[in-house]
Amino acid sequence: MDITSDIHSQHISRQFNHELEELKTHLMAMGGLVEKQVQDAVNSLLDADSSLAERVVDNDRAVNDMQIKIDDECTRVLARRQPAASDLRLVLAVIRAASDLERIGDEASKIARNAIELIENDSGSRGFVEVRIISEHVRRMMRDSLTSFARFDTDLALQIVEEDQKVDSEYQSAMRSLMTFMMEDARSISPVLGIMWILRALERVGDHANNLAEYVVYLVKGLDIRHTNPDDLDEEVGDR
Amino acid sequence: MDITSDIHSQHISRQFNHELEELKTHLMAMGGLVEKQVQDAVNSLLDADSSLAERVVDNDRAVNDMQIKIDDECTRVLARRQPAASDLRLVLAVIRAASDLERIGDEASKIARNAIELIENDSGSRGFVEVRIISEHVRRMMRDSLTSFARFDTDLALQIVEEDQKVDSEYQSAMRSLMTFMMEDARSISPVLGIMWILRALERVGDHANNLAEYVVYLVKGLDIRHTNPDDLDEEVGDR
Repeated sequence: MDITSDIHSQHISRQFNHELEELKTHLMAMGGLVEKQVQDAVNSLLDADSSLAERVVDNDRAVNDMQIKIDDECTRVLARRQPAASDLRLVLAVIRAASDLERIGDEASKIARNAIELIENDSGSRGFVEVRIISEHVRRMMRDSLTSFARFDTDLALQIVEEDQKVDSEYQSAMRSLMTFMMEDARSISPVLGIMWILRALERVGDHANNLAEYVVYLVKGLDIRHTNPDDLDEEVGDR
Repeated sequence: MDITSDIHSQHISRQFNHELEELKTHLMAMGGLVEKQVQDAVNSLLDADSSLAERVVDNDRAVNDMQIKIDDECTRVLARRQPAASDLRLVLAVIRAASDLERIGDEASKIARNAIELIENDSGSRGFVEVRIISEHVRRMMRDSLTSFARFDTDLALQIVEEDQKVDSEYQSAMRSLMTFMMEDARSISPVLGIMWILRALERVGDHANNLAEYVVYLVKGLDIRHTNPDDLDEEVGDR
């Protein structure tokens, strides 16, 4: 290869790496926005702040726009650069991750809409403790899953998969105690249902954070753990 | 180009077309299985058939395996063939569609698990009418969305987007009447909640069918309608 074409191909590969870095940066920006959406949605309920809840519903459009932009970028990179191996896995993981972030955005919107209704009906604070605990838990999962993606940190990613099981059991126990409230007081049925939808949405946020973590493992190890029993995970990932 | 290399490149392109057809065939097979899972899950409730419900839960593994296989195939096609333009869009649409089908499979599992609990507790048939109506509606949406994918039929795809709005309003009205039951009779709270989770799962099946339909439009028109207001759709798609 002569020097000119060598410099040329180095230039292309630098350019390509830059594009891949950009993809990650945009995904992280989307993650930051979505994280804030979940936090604002929960705070709007806890602080009875309807106008904050309405801003969350409005901002969902910005989240959707970011997904479309990231998808377009990924499609362009696939078409122009035709990446292989780990670069290809990165682009596919970004597409998947953006889709999960968009769905987390939808859940934030649902939380905010339920909050607006609960605030309007002056529904009291029954179930707020559960919402606070579970929302802190899933927001930590979201943050960690984004960090594990940014750093390609599979150890952190595997911790998140374990956390998700804890969230599921917190969620189940919260649902049981809320059901007891309903049975004791028929007037609480409607507001408690609103809280149940919010908890359900938070539980799904945890599921999506869990998906993000699984993509990191796929990305780094080339191993698809999406449908592996969590108890077998350490073993399987350790083998690689 | 000499004749030998011309024949060679024709051979490659035939081979490639064959691979793309295979992707579609496997996606349709997965769709068929998932459709059956939803139908069996609903029937297990309506016929109080716990063993059918348990089979649905067990079969979810087969659905997951199919997604992993399709994803692998897509990744291989992207790496080896480096498709561009509409071929690239097809592969990306298959990846997205397989992910939605896998999530429909999860919803079928949830329906079956709730059915098992309802059958065990001998919960009566309150809400069965609503489950039947909405499940028939979303199953038709699923079938149509798979057909529209197989035939690249955007007209059919756009109809599904409209149907999804109808399902949403059926779902809202079913939830309201179920809430009334709960308020009238505290003993009905636990079984009615089980029915509510089932309806919620069905409503999400409709959302995923809607996603599939949107990928068809993306595939054919190269137009991303995922976050477009349905009322503006005909206009936007007509413009192309």
